[in-house]
Amino acid sequence: MAAGKVIIYGGRGALGSAIASHFKAKGWWVGSIDLVSNDNADFCITVPRDASWSEQAQSVLSGLEKVLADGKVDAIINVAGGWAGGNAAHKDFLKSCEMMWQQSVWSSTISAQAASSFLKEGGLLTLPGAFPAVNGTPGMIGYGLAKAAVHQLTKSLGEEKSGLPKGSTALCILPTTLDTPMNRKWMSGADTTTWTSLEFVSDLFYKWANGQERPKTGSLVQLITKDGKTELVMA
Amino acid sequence: MAAGKVIIYGGRGALGSAIASHFKAKGWWVGSIDLVSNDNADFCITVPRDASWSEQAQSVLSGLEKVLADGKVDAIINVAGGWAGGNAAHKDFLKSCEMMWQQSVWSSTISAQAASSFLKEGGLLTLPGAFPAVNGTPGMIGYGLAKAAVHQLTKSLGEEKSGLPKGSTALCILPTTLDTPMNRKWMSGADTTTWTSLEFVSDLFYKWANGQERPKTGSLVQLITKDGKTELVMA
Repeated sequence: MAAGKVIIYGGRGALGSAIASHFKAKGWWVGSIDLVSNDNADFCITVPRDASWSEQAQSVLSGLEKVLADGKVDAIINVAGGWAGGNAAHKDFLKSCEMMWQQSVWSSTISAQAASSFLKEGGLLTLPGAFPAVNGTPGMIGYGLAKAAVHQLTKSLGEEKSGLPKGSTALCILPTTLDTPMNRKWMSGADTTTWTSLEFVSDLFYKWANGQERPKTGSLVQLITKDGKTELVMA
Repeated sequence: MAAGKVIIYGGRGALGSAIASHFKAKGWWVGSIDLVSNDNADFCITVPRDASWSEQAQSVLSGLEKVLADGKVDAIINVAGGWAGGNAAHKDFLKSCEMMWQQSVWSSTISAQAASSFLKEGGLLTLPGAFPAVNGTPGMIGYGLAKAAVHQLTKSLGEEKSGLPKGSTALCILPTTLDTPMNRKWMSGADTTTWTSLEFVSDLFYKWANGQERPKTGSLVQLITKDGKTELVMA
């Protein structure tokens, strides 16, 4: 029998794959939701690339219903999302807003909806925020506003009558830069001692999923990395 | 010659109509953007109800280009948006998120884009926020997250290199409840002495459009009404 059950939205991205491996190594059952399947997971839902918001939700919820039957999971971890720059005068401004919205907010609202049906009482839901979006982000407006929406969604989910199961914890992580291969490629020469390692985040989620050191539900948890060491600071 | 030129996004709603009348009475040229035309305006862009984000932008930007030619406006005021309730367990949860997103965030990003091309240097852009969305809003999750996105968008637009014209001011108003006929209808029996009058908001925008008493660009301006009197409090 599995030690626990976790669903990872964005389970095939750099961070999602690292988290999946971490939980697998600890004996957990891992379900992955992404555009492509993660062969390391026990179960995958692959979402069609051009699906609408409601189609994507339908695909996720019906997939979970099938595999979980009447069972529930201990944690739903959403790490889906990408990055796009651009200010209001950029020719692709609206396109970047739309893409950021779809990647961060669609996945987060669908995760919340999934949690309302498939998360155990006392379970964990985490959503992907961003430290810069606490303030203005003029050079990446679409990114910032989508992340700000995810932050406020987390606050809502942390309150009474949000629709989440009894005793569950909703948290949002606010990293600045994650140490991924893509970031290494696109920001070569940057000071990587301020980047947060995927191992740190995976281990953090693992502890939270086991009920250890969980911040108060609804918290925005900033991941502040200095000299390769990461501290958690509540926003 | 007109005293000034203003574009009102949502110019046919209760608040938009009040603002249009106010500016017209002061001798301004008024352009309205809405699903239906405002006969009191000098110029109307009617956006098709089922238009996508980019189609709506296209319709607005090409309409403004046609009427303004090489001219610019003094102010762009966005008051588009509606309200929908529902928590994460509500059967229409995603539908409410999508509707709120379209009404508040589409109109606000398109207003920002329009401002980058059609607003004068030193001009005014205002966006529609909401006081409750500063915190969690578990009973109206889609509404809260869309408004939070508009708040953060305003902060971005208030910073350097946001793409807005030089010296312009971007502000977001955060009312709690506006004293509209619809709110009187749906919340009959409520204490309306805490509701903000449309006249107050219209006059506030008129002053700001004239460069009077403008808060610092990027500000979130809470409208706090008590005993029928409204104070501005920076969030």
